Amino acid sequence: MDNAATTKITENVLKAMLPYLRENYGNASAIYSLGQKSRAAIENSRIKIAENLKVKPSEIYFTSSGSESDNWVIKEILNPREKNHIISSKIEHPAILNSLKSVERFGNETSLISVDEEGFVNLDELSEKIKDNTKLISIMFANNEIGTIEPISEISKIAREKNILFHTDAVQAMGNVKFNLKDIDVDMLSISGHKLGAPKGIGILYIKEGVEISPFINGGEQERGMRASTENIASIVGIAKAIEDAYANMDENINYTSDLRDYTIEKLLNIDGIIFNGPIDNRLPGNINITLKDTKPQTMVQYLDMYDICVSSGSACAAGSINPSHVLRAIGRSEEDSLSTLRLSINHNNTKEECDYVVEKISKGMKKFKNR
Amino acid sequence: MDNAATTKITENVLKAMLPYLRENYGNASAIYSLGQKSRAAIENSRIKIAENLKVKPSEIYFTSSGSESDNWVIKEILNPREKNHIISSKIEHPAILNSLKSVERFGNETSLISVDEEGFVNLDELSEKIKDNTKLISIMFANNEIGTIEPISEISKIAREKNILFHTDAVQAMGNVKFNLKDIDVDMLSISGHKLGAPKGIGILYIKEGVEISPFINGGEQERGMRASTENIASIVGIAKAIEDAYANMDENINYTSDLRDYTIEKLLNIDGIIFNGPIDNRLPGNINITLKDTKPQTMVQYLDMYDICVSSGSACAAGSINPSHVLRAIGRSEEDSLSTLRLSINHNNTKEECDYVVEKISKGMKKFKNR
Repeated sequence: MDNAATTKITENVLKAMLPYLRENYGNASAIYSLGQKSRAAIENSRIKIAENLKVKPSEIYFTSSGSESDNWVIKEILNPREKNHIISSKIEHPAILNSLKSVERFGNETSLISVDEEGFVNLDELSEKIKDNTKLISIMFANNEIGTIEPISEISKIAREKNILFHTDAVQAMGNVKFNLKDIDVDMLSISGHKLGAPKGIGILYIKEGVEISPFINGGEQERGMRASTENIASIVGIAKAIEDAYANMDENINYTSDLRDYTIEKLLNIDGIIFNGPIDNRLPGNINITLKDTKPQTMVQYLDMYDICVSSGSACAAGSINPSHVLRAIGRSEEDSLSTLRLSINHNNTKEECDYVVEKISKGMKKFKNR
Repeated sequence: MDNAATTKITENVLKAMLPYLRENYGNASAIYSLGQKSRAAIENSRIKIAENLKVKPSEIYFTSSGSESDNWVIKEILNPREKNHIISSKIEHPAILNSLKSVERFGNETSLISVDEEGFVNLDELSEKIKDNTKLISIMFANNEIGTIEPISEISKIAREKNILFHTDAVQAMGNVKFNLKDIDVDMLSISGHKLGAPKGIGILYIKEGVEISPFINGGEQERGMRASTENIASIVGIAKAIEDAYANMDENINYTSDLRDYTIEKLLNIDGIIFNGPIDNRLPGNINITLKDTKPQTMVQYLDMYDICVSSGSACAAGSINPSHVLRAIGRSEEDSLSTLRLSINHNNTKEECDYVVEKISKGMKKFKNR
């Protein structure tokens, strides 16, 4: 029930990867056959991903994570000799928010626009915040905590009108929202492998042809000189397979998971002391976010763990943190309520029986731990 | 014969990794058991590595590659509000050289010291180049093309005297040179996994306690807030196992490989038209670098490939490149000779029979392709 934190590598993906963890280990920059096998695996993976996203293979760059992709955009889109302005939102992932703080050191300016009570960004505020030196708008495709799917096409239109670059962190949206980059017009888009059945340690940055950005990792000529490091072939093959499978089963998975989500939310809201967070519509199919009144979420997480149930208090990236969720604060929840949230993130591998079991245990836990 | 480009993942390493590619897939930031299993695997790996390097576990940071480690040092050791000076050498890996170019954009200054005809850095020149604003000296532990093992302790002494930070890229040295960080005093050290039997896509940066450096990848609180991204647990476990095995068998492997190297070099030098590059002493145990007079190295690489022999023309990171090797130019080779080099990099898994076979084929190739 914590698929937004990470997913198990699928059988399909692991099977595709294993030859590249064993016999096909050649360095893809080498000109002998063993190297060229690796090269072919990488380029075929790139083509497969590009086909699903409806972009050119040359617009796909492999990175080590969604966070790296986000850092790359925020830090390298800027001309260091100019003072630039970036607009983002208050509910972004820390990979964006902390990268923004990092580039402020170089004299750049950032604006974070607010969101409504369901987590949708304020488009009027976005337009108002645009200045002459606004170089980039970076708004996440879907929020990792409360599942809000942002109006990406509308944001894109605003960016286009003003001739500003637009990046979106699609780490949570990938595989969970049906989209391609022919229909939605973005300049850059971040993807993470381990959120969709590929391994940890692999990500993608889509960079539209013509966008001027410097490399984040300098060095060898890998990724056409844009991202140095010996290519992580097994994981590249893995993420390509995961994306292929995600697109092949997209409608089915989204329908199944959304139904299961709605079924589970309805049952959860019958429990005394549970408040629902996030939007009803335009929500990630697997996302459920609830506030437990007068109950410490960590206690609940540990209680559920005894029943082999994995859920998250806040997002995984901040699970160790005892700070109130910045996302829940942004949608207007009190500091106390923002500290008392539980995120369940299901996917197409979860069953109705599992959800019933989880609801039952949460219900019991609520009675057990109230005010403790 | 191209182990300096990359190595096969060892049986031991793959076996250690597989549970973390299968059932133990929890996000290490999660507080439930599945997450805590991942956390334990990461921290045990860190302890294992720290023990071998004789440092504190808290000084070990996991990255996605040696290149990332190098980029982190060069780009984040600098205070962006000051104009700093960095000293490095002419024979560094592109991950260092191109990172240096990148930070020059921010008004920083860099000096590259020269090397002698065997590739050893000029220590007098190093001392002379030090200025009041010299912040960092970065000199590689061992060169990837010609195998020169640099006088790291002497460089360290110079840096210490002047109170300048010292970083070394130990990507090629790790596992091939017996060292620990109690005996050699460096502030930062880069390691890559796939050069020593661990997978591609994992690296380490050692950062000595007290060194002030900003994160390279901002985001979540992973690696004590110093390197964001969901941890790549399987590969972390893999690199720890690889380092453990490397240290356990270090003397034996170095002796075996050095003997095989010297045996092979002697036989190669009997072939007409072959010139030896790099040092006799203080050379990586597996490194053989030769210039083929009047023969295109790419032709030779492809010829040897027909016999299932993998060797490299230049380093893997620049193998696609038709530029003369910057390393061979730096040791005084002509442009023509710098274009005509072959690197063989053996390790303890190679046999005498394999080396005989390779020498025989190179000898035949030299006759076949002379002036072609």
